[in-house]
Amino acid sequence: MANTRDLSEQLGEPVAGNGLLHRRFFLQSGAAIASAAAATATAARAESISAISPPTMLKPGSGFTAYGVPSHWRDNIKRILVTNAPPAREVTGSSRTPLQMLEGMITPAGLHYVRIHNGVPDIDPDKHELAIYGMVKQPLIFNVNSLMRYPMNSEIRFMECAGNSGASNAPMPPQQTAGDIHGLLSCSEWTGVKLSTLLDEAGLDPKATWILAEGADGAGMSRSVPVWKAMDDAMIALYQNGEPIRPEQGFPMRLLLPGFEGNTNVKWIRRLKVMDTPMYTRDETSRYTELMPDGKAREFMLQMEPKSVITKPSFGMNMQGPGYYEISGVAWSGLGRVKQVDISADGGKSWTQAALSGPVLPKAVTRFRLPWMWNGQPVTLMSRTTDEKGTVQKTHADWVAQYAPRQNFHFSAIQSWAVDASGKVSNIYV
Amino acid sequence: MANTRDLSEQLGEPVAGNGLLHRRFFLQSGAAIASAAAATATAARAESISAISPPTMLKPGSGFTAYGVPSHWRDNIKRILVTNAPPAREVTGSSRTPLQMLEGMITPAGLHYVRIHNGVPDIDPDKHELAIYGMVKQPLIFNVNSLMRYPMNSEIRFMECAGNSGASNAPMPPQQTAGDIHGLLSCSEWTGVKLSTLLDEAGLDPKATWILAEGADGAGMSRSVPVWKAMDDAMIALYQNGEPIRPEQGFPMRLLLPGFEGNTNVKWIRRLKVMDTPMYTRDETSRYTELMPDGKAREFMLQMEPKSVITKPSFGMNMQGPGYYEISGVAWSGLGRVKQVDISADGGKSWTQAALSGPVLPKAVTRFRLPWMWNGQPVTLMSRTTDEKGTVQKTHADWVAQYAPRQNFHFSAIQSWAVDASGKVSNIYV
Repeated sequence: MANTRDLSEQLGEPVAGNGLLHRRFFLQSGAAIASAAAATATAARAESISAISPPTMLKPGSGFTAYGVPSHWRDNIKRILVTNAPPAREVTGSSRTPLQMLEGMITPAGLHYVRIHNGVPDIDPDKHELAIYGMVKQPLIFNVNSLMRYPMNSEIRFMECAGNSGASNAPMPPQQTAGDIHGLLSCSEWTGVKLSTLLDEAGLDPKATWILAEGADGAGMSRSVPVWKAMDDAMIALYQNGEPIRPEQGFPMRLLLPGFEGNTNVKWIRRLKVMDTPMYTRDETSRYTELMPDGKAREFMLQMEPKSVITKPSFGMNMQGPGYYEISGVAWSGLGRVKQVDISADGGKSWTQAALSGPVLPKAVTRFRLPWMWNGQPVTLMSRTTDEKGTVQKTHADWVAQYAPRQNFHFSAIQSWAVDASGKVSNIYV
Repeated sequence: MANTRDLSEQLGEPVAGNGLLHRRFFLQSGAAIASAAAATATAARAESISAISPPTMLKPGSGFTAYGVPSHWRDNIKRILVTNAPPAREVTGSSRTPLQMLEGMITPAGLHYVRIHNGVPDIDPDKHELAIYGMVKQPLIFNVNSLMRYPMNSEIRFMECAGNSGASNAPMPPQQTAGDIHGLLSCSEWTGVKLSTLLDEAGLDPKATWILAEGADGAGMSRSVPVWKAMDDAMIALYQNGEPIRPEQGFPMRLLLPGFEGNTNVKWIRRLKVMDTPMYTRDETSRYTELMPDGKAREFMLQMEPKSVITKPSFGMNMQGPGYYEISGVAWSGLGRVKQVDISADGGKSWTQAALSGPVLPKAVTRFRLPWMWNGQPVTLMSRTTDEKGTVQKTHADWVAQYAPRQNFHFSAIQSWAVDASGKVSNIYV
C-alpha cells in the first residue's frame, strides 16, 4: 500500500506551517535527522565505553525497600503548591501536577493534584460509614469491608478541578509552567463499586432527581449530583492505580464522577441523600458557577469541556537549537473520548493532526505526539482537541467572550506557546 | 434484545458448578443479594449518621505534601522480601508485588516487584551513556538528554521474572499468599524511545541476529536479545507510570522487551552490542534455561506464556460466610492479548468465562471478574487464560510433565485455591 501513502509521510516533508511533519513520519534509516542529538561515535570510542566499567559496576548497590520512592536525582519533580494561606495554616488551596515533567497518560498517585478546603482528614477506615438514604425504599449503610463484597469496576479516568487553568483568564498571559497553569489535572486507574449497584439495592424513588454527596473532612465538602450521572458511570472508588486510595484523594473512599468537575467527586464520602432537588450547598453556589455577560450565573455546568496542552516544549524550557523535535502533550474531554488533536506551529493559520498514543479511553487523558523540524525561527505552537461528540476546543478570544470578565471556572481555551529565535518558550494569548 | 439474553444472565442462576454466575449478571434492584454485607438501616439510623459529625469534620486536617504517600492505615501493603542473603548483604534476591492486596491492572511504582543481583546502583543521569555499536554502519552514543529529542512511545505492559511462581513446582503446594508465589509480576505504563528508531539510525548490518544488552549495575547483568525483538516492540524506557523510571527499575534508562522474561529487560542499560550470535552470558546460561526430561536444556525461551491467578479470594483470606462474592484476579500473556479467562469452582469439572475489565491490551495485565454465590460448601477455585494466539494455560500436572524435576523457570500452570467449609483458603495442586 506504499503508493497510497502521502509522500510527506514517507519523506518527512512539512504538512503544515513552520516545519510540522506528518504524524506517521518515522525517522528513516540513515536519515540521521536526530543525530544532532545522538553523538555519532567511532567504533573505538564505543568499544572504550564497553571496556571501562563505570563506578556503579565496581561495587554492590543499595538493597531492598518496602515501598519505593523516586530517584533523588529527580527530587525537583514534585507537586506545585498554590495557596494564599500562611505557612502554618496551609489547609486550603491546591497543589498541582507538574505536567511538563511527566509523560504518558497515568499520573503517579504521589503527584496527583490535590485541592483541599480544610485539610486532609485522618479517617480510621474501620469506623468510616457511608449512608445512602432519603428518597429510597431501603436506607443502607456501608463500610469498607461491606463494599469489598460488591462487584468492582476499574476505569482509567482523568480528574480536573473546575478552577484549572483559571490563570489563563488574567489580562496578561501568566509566565508560568504548564503544571502551574493547567496542573489541576491528573489521570488514574480507579477501582471501586458502581454507584448504580448500591442505588439499585437501596431502591430509588422514581421521583428522585438529585443526590447530596458529603465528605467527612473539616470543610464538609458537599455537592449535589444529578441522579442520571449517579446511575450512569459514577463509582464509589476504593483504589487508585492499583493500591488503596491515598488520604489526599479520599481515603478510605471517594465518589468518582468521570468527566465532572473535580469537587463533585466528593472525597472521604460519608453520605448520599437522595432528593428531588439540588441542595444548593455553599460549595456549589459561592463557587463553581459561570458568571455570564448579562450578570446571571449558570449553575451546575458539571461536565468538563475538551481541552489540551502542549507540555513539550512549554514555558520554562529552552530549545537546543534548530533541528528535529517531538511536540507532545495531553488532551482530554469530560464528554467522552478524544477524537482528534490538531497542532499548529504558525499561530493557527495551518493545522495538522497529531498521533494519539493508545489506549484512547473515554474521559481519560490521551497523550498526543507530532514530529517537528524547527528551522530556528520564532513560532507559535497551539493544540486543539476535538472529542467524539464533535465538540472543539475554543480559541482564547472565543472562550473569554462567552462570559463576564474574570469568570475563571471551567477555563478550556487553546493554550499557545511562543518560541523565540533563541529557543525560549513563553506563554501568549492568540 | 432482552429475549436473546441467557436467562441465567438475568436471574443470577448458576452457569457452572458450585455457584458461578454469568459474567454479565448484575445485582438486580431489590434482589438484595449483597445485603448480607450492607447494613439495611432505618431512615432514622441513616439520618442520625448525617446529623452527627465524625471527629474529622470538627477540625482542619493535615496540609500539603510535595510527593504523596499511602495511608498509614494501610502500611501493611508493601513489597514481600524474598532473599537468602544475611540482612547486611541484602543486595541479591527479590521483593514481590502483594497482588492479593491490589486491584485493577496498574501496579504503583512503589510496589513494582524488584529482582536485583548485586543491588540498585546510584547512577548520575548526566554521566550515564548508552552505546550502540558492533555490526552497525555508524556507532552511536546516547545520554538522557539526547534521547529526550527522539520520538517517544507509551505502552502499558507487564513485567514478569522468569523465576515467578517457581515455588509452585515444589512437591507440596506452598501455603503462601498470591503475592509470595506469583508477585514477581507487575504492570506499568512505560514511555521511551523505540529501539528500532535508534537501530535504524545506527544502521544494522543485514547479517546481525543478536544484540548483547548490558546494565551498569554491580552484577553487570547481561543478556542476548534477538534482533527481531529489538526491531519489533522493544523500547529504551525513560518513564514509568508517567514519572522518570525509579532507581530499582533502571534509572535513568532500561531496556523494555514486552512479554519477554524479566531480566532480558536490562535495567541501567549502558550498551547494546550488535552481533551475529548470542553472547551466552552467565546470566543466560547458568539460569533461565529450561531443563528437559532428557537432560538437555532449552535456551532462550524468552516469551512468557499465558497465565493467571485469582487474587480474591486467595490464600490468607477468610470468607465471611455463605453468600455473594466477586471472584477477581489478574491474567496476562507474553504472546499478546488475553482473549479469555475461564473460571472453575469445582476443580476443573465445569468452567465459565470471566468478564475482562478493559482496556485489554497486548502483553498487559488484564483484570478479570466473575460473580459467585457461595453456598458454604468446600470448593476448588481455578482460573485459566487463553490468549489471542490460542495458547491455553496448562494444568499443574501437564505443565510439570514437560520438564525435568524441579525445573522452576517460566512456571505458568493453573493456580488452584481450596476453600473449606469454614471459609479458609489454602493452596492445592489439581
